[in-house]
Amino acid sequence: MDKLRVSLLGSTGMVGQKMVRLLSSHPFIELAKVSASPNKVGKKYKEAVKWIEEGEIPEAAQDLTVVSTSPEDHRDVDVVLSALPNELAEDVELKLVREGITVVSNSSPFRMDPEIPLINPEINWEHLRLLETQRQKRGWKGLMVKNPNCTAAILSMPLKPLLKYGLNKLVITTLQAVSGAGYNGLPFMSIGNNVIPYIKGEEDKIPKESGKMLGELQGDKIAYVKLDALVTATRVPVKVGHMGVVTALFNSPVNAEEVRKELMNFRAFPQDRNLPTAPKHPIRVLEGEDRPQPEIDVKAEGGMAVSVGRIRQEGDSIRFVVLGDNLVRGAAGITILTLEVMRELGYI
Amino acid sequence: MDKLRVSLLGSTGMVGQKMVRLLSSHPFIELAKVSASPNKVGKKYKEAVKWIEEGEIPEAAQDLTVVSTSPEDHRDVDVVLSALPNELAEDVELKLVREGITVVSNSSPFRMDPEIPLINPEINWEHLRLLETQRQKRGWKGLMVKNPNCTAAILSMPLKPLLKYGLNKLVITTLQAVSGAGYNGLPFMSIGNNVIPYIKGEEDKIPKESGKMLGELQGDKIAYVKLDALVTATRVPVKVGHMGVVTALFNSPVNAEEVRKELMNFRAFPQDRNLPTAPKHPIRVLEGEDRPQPEIDVKAEGGMAVSVGRIRQEGDSIRFVVLGDNLVRGAAGITILTLEVMRELGYI
Amino acid sequence: MDKLRVSLLGSTGMVGQKMVRLLSSHPFIELAKVSASPNKVGKKYKEAVKWIEEGEIPEAAQDLTVVSTSPEDHRDVDVVLSALPNELAEDVELKLVREGITVVSNSSPFRMDPEIPLINPEINWEHLRLLETQRQKRGWKGLMVKNPNCTAAILSMPLKPLLKYGLNKLVITTLQAVSGAGYNGLPFMSIGNNVIPYIKGEEDKIPKESGKMLGELQGDKIAYVKLDALVTATRVPVKVGHMGVVTALFNSPVNAEEVRKELMNFRAFPQDRNLPTAPKHPIRVLEGEDRPQPEIDVKAEGGMAVSVGRIRQEGDSIRFVVLGDNLVRGAAGITILTLEVMRELGYI
Amino acid sequence: MDKLRVSLLGSTGMVGQKMVRLLSSHPFIELAKVSASPNKVGKKYKEAVKWIEEGEIPEAAQDLTVVSTSPEDHRDVDVVLSALPNELAEDVELKLVREGITVVSNSSPFRMDPEIPLINPEINWEHLRLLETQRQKRGWKGLMVKNPNCTAAILSMPLKPLLKYGLNKLVITTLQAVSGAGYNGLPFMSIGNNVIPYIKGEEDKIPKESGKMLGELQGDKIAYVKLDALVTATRVPVKVGHMGVVTALFNSPVNAEEVRKELMNFRAFPQDRNLPTAPKHPIRVLEGEDRPQPEIDVKAEGGMAVSVGRIRQEGDSIRFVVLGDNLVRGAAGITILTLEVMRELGYI
Repeated sequence: MDKLRVSLLGSTGMVGQKMVRLLSSHPFIELAKVSASPNKVGKKYKEAVKWIEEGEIPEAAQDLTVVSTSPEDHRDVDVVLSALPNELAEDVELKLVREGITVVSNSSPFRMDPEIPLINPEINWEHLRLLETQRQKRGWKGLMVKNPNCTAAILSMPLKPLLKYGLNKLVITTLQAVSGAGYNGLPFMSIGNNVIPYIKGEEDKIPKESGKMLGELQGDKIAYVKLDALVTATRVPVKVGHMGVVTALFNSPVNAEEVRKELMNFRAFPQDRNLPTAPKHPIRVLEGEDRPQPEIDVKAEGGMAVSVGRIRQEGDSIRFVVLGDNLVRGAAGITILTLEVMRELGYI
Repeated sequence: MDKLRVSLLGSTGMVGQKMVRLLSSHPFIELAKVSASPNKVGKKYKEAVKWIEEGEIPEAAQDLTVVSTSPEDHRDVDVVLSALPNELAEDVELKLVREGITVVSNSSPFRMDPEIPLINPEINWEHLRLLETQRQKRGWKGLMVKNPNCTAAILSMPLKPLLKYGLNKLVITTLQAVSGAGYNGLPFMSIGNNVIPYIKGEEDKIPKESGKMLGELQGDKIAYVKLDALVTATRVPVKVGHMGVVTALFNSPVNAEEVRKELMNFRAFPQDRNLPTAPKHPIRVLEGEDRPQPEIDVKAEGGMAVSVGRIRQEGDSIRFVVLGDNLVRGAAGITILTLEVMRELGYI
Repeated sequence: MDKLRVSLLGSTGMVGQKMVRLLSSHPFIELAKVSASPNKVGKKYKEAVKWIEEGEIPEAAQDLTVVSTSPEDHRDVDVVLSALPNELAEDVELKLVREGITVVSNSSPFRMDPEIPLINPEINWEHLRLLETQRQKRGWKGLMVKNPNCTAAILSMPLKPLLKYGLNKLVITTLQAVSGAGYNGLPFMSIGNNVIPYIKGEEDKIPKESGKMLGELQGDKIAYVKLDALVTATRVPVKVGHMGVVTALFNSPVNAEEVRKELMNFRAFPQDRNLPTAPKHPIRVLEGEDRPQPEIDVKAEGGMAVSVGRIRQEGDSIRFVVLGDNLVRGAAGITILTLEVMRELGYI
Repeated sequence: MDKLRVSLLGSTGMVGQKMVRLLSSHPFIELAKVSASPNKVGKKYKEAVKWIEEGEIPEAAQDLTVVSTSPEDHRDVDVVLSALPNELAEDVELKLVREGITVVSNSSPFRMDPEIPLINPEINWEHLRLLETQRQKRGWKGLMVKNPNCTAAILSMPLKPLLKYGLNKLVITTLQAVSGAGYNGLPFMSIGNNVIPYIKGEEDKIPKESGKMLGELQGDKIAYVKLDALVTATRVPVKVGHMGVVTALFNSPVNAEEVRKELMNFRAFPQDRNLPTAPKHPIRVLEGEDRPQPEIDVKAEGGMAVSVGRIRQEGDSIRFVVLGDNLVRGAAGITILTLEVMRELGYI
């Protein structure tokens, strides 16, 4: 089987570097091209990047020549992966798709567009069928697939199995890592020894994007789930790992032990097909009363599993704490897994 | 007016040191004696203490000789303040009270005892009337007054003005500072760059102690308020400042602007009498969308005011974020303010 | 005595805010004007600033209208204090001085200029006599006085009394706080849980600026001290407080006890005249074997004293550890003290 | 080839856990037994340990039954590895060796004993010949081999190639990670946002142990190198990675470029024999002017390589910054590599 050749937009950023590392040992995806901002174009990747990922720059990437984001620089690859900053993504990605290039992207523009699949693979791989609608309605020559906001990617995982119990209201407090704001997002002086109880835009995105992902595909449309979610998003002085403290209120009591089993046994298409980036257990249920913790649990299954602990029932409520790697499950890994699913389903 | 002479148990600990500093400039309370663990008895305070508070050891305290916790060492003072660790407090404090000594204490034993006032001065100074019942029923020669758990001290402040709206359910996530576990409570290796989503005992104490403090004194009893509170207590890598993310669910919509005004205008007996440790505004309402923050707000009014921000309404819910200094409002300051109230009311 | 009216450039930055706070209670300096970047001009200070200093914005400053850096906006004050970023300072300050305005500045341009006094008040207040030369040679209508780099301000203090022993070589490692790079200087992701063993420009500045300050004024020139100093400057994840680990090699043994006394007894003009911002003991000698520490010692005497510990002799070497508040002794406070000295000496 | 069967003392501690993880995939060493404190004896390892290492507890270790430290519990293994705390190690290890068991240990007792090899494999594997003398003079039935203090293990690496240039004096400042004091060694309240410029015992150990390791084996004795080293050891708020800022003074100028090459090309017996835990490049020379950094460089070659940067010459001095993983190169890894060398040389 031929390898998929991909190019990567935003390859020198924090998420981009993580993709470069993850792809360096991928069995069937080959990083063929790297793109970065205009002042880096023409340099070798190893000269253009200020490498902060663990280990050395993968050998296969070191000498790649940085290309621009223009379509002409990406015609000879099978897919373009995008780790572009949100403010640049809209124009660049649209141009690529119009020119016939397939883009799988982490950036936020278009995520809530009804014809664009917003994919968290284990949750809603089936939404990729929207691509047919997309092609008809949009008239693009290429395809566009989006991944969710990092927090929504993590929180939507344990919500999926809970939906069937008749969720009435969600109260969520997030404790989010600094890397979620980007490498330069927060100065040490502002977040060191501190908590900032507000993250711009985040509290809306979480229920909106989750509601789209958890929705059912009905014909050529997704019936969004309307989540009555009260979210407060806070930033804590932790480098990697977004935590959510979730209180789910139901119309009648739900058994905590049953929920625990549902979460533990949760599997989906990526597991069934044994895709290389799929975690064996997408949701890892922890017993320790003081878990999950970023420093211990964030790298579970290479950062692709989310960890859930402190599952408890009181009256009509179920509470739990969920943690995920915002850079892997929430960004670089989810994009790669999405591409693996697309290939498995024949979209590429 | 003669000064009140007090002795201080647990004077070399973190909270004890803060009391030593606060008392060093007090207009009518004089720190006459300091007590510490047996191996320090007989030493000068400046030799017994590993001083970690800001500034130098107050001059008046430096050469005090450390005494034991036995009643005979505390007969010639008006009141004993206790910053003892919980595990030592029960025996020591009981012995003192039985011997006729009045104890105002931060430690946890006896807090929920029906005859013992659990005082957060602005909330329930009137509960000091329980002392008459205490005297009758317990037959102690001295008096015992308790202060609440540090988180309950902070959270109960904004809850008080909300009660009248018919609180249905509270969902609270706390982000608590490391100092709440004591100076040696948490190793850097465990909490640095981490969040621990569990604090033993804390999740029960908060609604229980708050329910007692918010209760009404009816005859010689307190009618506890039964708070339907779902609390998740987490530890974050912050030195000082406990934060609570509070979602209050009511039976019908409550106006956020009205709540804001209630909180801003909240005053009580300590403010009316202009007591020296009383903050002018017990609740400080902040407008900035990213406030309160420990690094900016924790020292407001010397650490005695709690800061509330992000007040917002959605449907039947009111949400806000509250922050307080766990070592001052939550411990050293609340004890001193309680003593000031007791003197003002003639209990001492 | 009339108050000195000053205006402040860079008033909304971290050092600027500290000056605003320090000046708010100053006995004879009045903050009459605040200046900030063009987009803030015309606003009230309280609207222009993102206040991060402790406590609230001083009342006297809250409603000051932000002015530009142009000379016309500063004609009616006695002195302009500058906390401008280095890259803006050169042009702005030169223009002011040429127009007849006296500038006392923290910024780096002109520091090594032979006609410009570089003042650390306790070390070289006498260098202010250079101002006469400056006036003659430069033909400026105003005066320009500079303060040193924050690390040089701190390190030069204990070096002064050591000079007379015949210093042969200095080996210095600095462990510098993040605030030294400015509020936005370092992202949490880069310095959290990390050490960066290099600070651009710093290793040169320290010996150069110290050599100028420690030099003797001979006629109208300063005879610089040539320090043979091997400096390695590192950045550590600490918010405030620059530390220097100093190894001084002499030509023959120097008695540690004698050095200790020299440092403890060090006094100078600011102490003699009891200037309001002068620390009583410019150098605080600590006995504890694990001191000084930023978290305990940095605020000594309001941040104006430097703390020295671990003084020990081995062979021809004397070693010690010095710590100072880089924002007060190293920036805001040193500027104000310099101004106090200038007034005392009649330069203003 | 049969596997070496080892048992591990102190298996539930931080270093012990790291050994468990490193051994779980070792080609020829099998972890056969785990030992821990008396209250854990009899439990399964997975129940006895509070696992803090990355990933899950290795499967092969999970169900091992914890044994005591008594010789009878270790008769059927080839070697005992010790990660015991220093205060327990002396008695336990001595008893084992007297009973005929070979011990390779990280703990500090006996390190400076002339008949006991203190091994940093790349530096002084030849010192293992001391074991013959040990056997003769001590009359122990087993063998005892020690590994150095973590900082000495790291610093001695780049010193080895420098010795030949005629080292005159060393001035060293260390910036050491908190894990060096053990998992519970330092409370967050003491070292968070702080530097502690003193580590008990450390400043002596570094030159003493390095002097022994760098010494030449002459007959049955080691001729210690007398290092004239002025060491100041500081603790910084970093979890893993000890840094040393080294100033080496020579009698005449030494070329920095030559030093760089010496360090880059440094190889020894473990590399020659391609031992599984040996790093390919024991010393990694970095070009970036702001390197090495703990967050980027500490895991190089699985934590077994030390990283050296900022090599520069000035006059008769050579300066550089060295960084190593105090838990791997400084503890768990060095012990395993020592055992590999011992087996290769036929001592086991």
